Amino acid sequence: MNYNSAALVMHEEHKGKIEVVSKVAVQSKEDLSTAYTPGVAEPCRKINQNKDNVYKYTAKGNLVAVVSDGTAVLGLGDIGPEAALPVMEGKSILFKEFANVDAFPLCIDSKNVDEIVRFVQMAAPTFGGINLEDISSPRCVEIERALKATTDIPIFHDDQHGTAVVVTAAMINALKIVNKSFADIKVVINGAGAAGSAIMRMLLDVGVKDIMVCDRSGIIARNRPAKHWIIEEIAKCTNHQVLNGNLADAMVGADVFIGVSGKDLVTQAMVASMNKDAIVLPMANPDPEILPDLALAAGARIVGTGRSDFDNQINNVLAFPGIFRGALDARASDINEAMKFAAAKAIAQLIPDDQLSEKNIIPYALNKEVAEVVAKAVYHAAIDSSVARL
Amino acid sequence: MNYNSAALVMHEEHKGKIEVVSKVAVQSKEDLSTAYTPGVAEPCRKINQNKDNVYKYTAKGNLVAVVSDGTAVLGLGDIGPEAALPVMEGKSILFKEFANVDAFPLCIDSKNVDEIVRFVQMAAPTFGGINLEDISSPRCVEIERALKATTDIPIFHDDQHGTAVVVTAAMINALKIVNKSFADIKVVINGAGAAGSAIMRMLLDVGVKDIMVCDRSGIIARNRPAKHWIIEEIAKCTNHQVLNGNLADAMVGADVFIGVSGKDLVTQAMVASMNKDAIVLPMANPDPEILPDLALAAGARIVGTGRSDFDNQINNVLAFPGIFRGALDARASDINEAMKFAAAKAIAQLIPDDQLSEKNIIPYALNKEVAEVVAKAVYHAAIDSSVARL
Repeated sequence: MNYNSAALVMHEEHKGKIEVVSKVAVQSKEDLSTAYTPGVAEPCRKINQNKDNVYKYTAKGNLVAVVSDGTAVLGLGDIGPEAALPVMEGKSILFKEFANVDAFPLCIDSKNVDEIVRFVQMAAPTFGGINLEDISSPRCVEIERALKATTDIPIFHDDQHGTAVVVTAAMINALKIVNKSFADIKVVINGAGAAGSAIMRMLLDVGVKDIMVCDRSGIIARNRPAKHWIIEEIAKCTNHQVLNGNLADAMVGADVFIGVSGKDLVTQAMVASMNKDAIVLPMANPDPEILPDLALAAGARIVGTGRSDFDNQINNVLAFPGIFRGALDARASDINEAMKFAAAKAIAQLIPDDQLSEKNIIPYALNKEVAEVVAKAVYHAAIDSSVARL
Repeated sequence: MNYNSAALVMHEEHKGKIEVVSKVAVQSKEDLSTAYTPGVAEPCRKINQNKDNVYKYTAKGNLVAVVSDGTAVLGLGDIGPEAALPVMEGKSILFKEFANVDAFPLCIDSKNVDEIVRFVQMAAPTFGGINLEDISSPRCVEIERALKATTDIPIFHDDQHGTAVVVTAAMINALKIVNKSFADIKVVINGAGAAGSAIMRMLLDVGVKDIMVCDRSGIIARNRPAKHWIIEEIAKCTNHQVLNGNLADAMVGADVFIGVSGKDLVTQAMVASMNKDAIVLPMANPDPEILPDLALAAGARIVGTGRSDFDNQINNVLAFPGIFRGALDARASDINEAMKFAAAKAIAQLIPDDQLSEKNIIPYALNKEVAEVVAKAVYHAAIDSSVARL
């Protein structure tokens, strides 16, 4: 398959992928007098009288900004804001296609955390929510936390939480099959960036007690020097035995392997060293940490990757459209832990027990029903956790 | 006519006026692999190799941000970014409707000139051009000048230059009818804000020698204290006689009156005091400085207002869509004086000499042909003045 040349042709033919269109007619004098001056002054006045009316009379309530500084784009790294645009446009059209959310890419020319935070704060009046994307770690987490503390709209870094939600969904179903529980398993995560650290946090939240996280230098441990504050945070809440060693050492006896790292970093021997009924989720894209057939041959019971050409594709598109749809519908001020867990459970429950199998732990990425079900669950979780503003 | 209640109903029914849609299909696995991962990585790489490719593979080249801080919205004043959104959405759909420009509103939460400048600089990678809108004077001019000096995309403050272009177009045709020339007329402008000062600059550029500008304190003159630097600038290049007085004093013997001020500020006596064949353009919206029938009864030969229910509607929509269309098509780095004058001439020429009359000096605002003709003229002016990048 040569998606690369097809992508070039398609992107050049259409000059990008997004278009901004009108929802109302602009043909007659009357149209213009209602959509623009003089009539438009009236919704302006109503919003000036009560800021909440902005959700009633403008597109804000259905608008999400897809914000990136282009520092951590796909596997390409720091390619800058212009080169990040095709990805952010792609993300925007997925929002529309899967959840009828109007999303707009904003690729910004700064790598400074404070500047990016201020930029999004200034942009916030226009949008109902902000999706941060492809910003390098630990800056992405710093930006997200600063924005959550200072804005009244949902801030969601998809590389962190979208991934964590879908992994949690996959694990809910995989654990059912192998008849183990979150509280009793040992999990190894390879990769301590945005995705790895967010997966760790979510798994701790759902009750996993034994987690080890590895980075390029091996197992993260309290007695090891930390490159930055996220590594320190990881060290504090994982690896209680303070084990030192490499990924192979970590994986001995593990029930679950989660890879958000790179190609071929896991060997068959490592998989063979895991506990019985091992769940192996090598999600590096496009080349997983270990290919599914190798992992299965080495004794893994369940394997899921990021790829659409293998079973069990663990793809963020299962999460972010429905999560934002639900948050926007509830006019939520935040996307909190309760809403993310509701999304994970909803995704998992889309596979009925009688259809659950080693090769079917997660819905098909292009199943349009998923976003709807996720949205409903997130909407109700927003209300139950008191962040809805209806 | 009750456009106010119709506008409320329409804005609430549609929840605003803009929508972000996909130009490409997102149905199959293949679609997703071309529009998104893994294929999307290829246009990213091409742009990373050569930044110019962003115009080839993304929507940037057809995208304009409509940026406002909500400090000078219509006649409503400083109503804030949220309340400004209906106007900026309206502007955005006019861009699309009249010139197929994809425009997106960004209403921003800051009134600080430096912050707004930095915001637009950071947003610049995403957009092919920036339309500043409804920002109070003199900040709007400060922001525009700082951005023109530091970005490589066209920056255009429509309240200034859109108005100046359409007024100049109207004057080209009005002067033909009365058989006077720019060099020989005396012009009085009432209003020294964004529009008034820009009209002054453009008229000086096209050769008008005798201009007086009035603000609330009367005729701006070198020997009068200036509220801010724009007033100083106006004082320097107008009112060479250093006349002191009020608007009535200024209008005695004037050939042209241009109003960008407020309701009923011009009396019939003032119009009667003007030179023979007076051209009166009271453009305050929705209520002009003097109603057309009163001005005509007082001796004006040609009258134009901002209103669609009178003859000669001087409406920015004749200018900004075509100006941006032409600038984007030329991938211009700027919208310069040559391009603005080309736009004014093109608008004027749309009325053939044999159809020119006191009641027909400017094309109908909803005439879709205008933007096309203006775009062509602006495109060629961009090439001729070496700001095109083709």
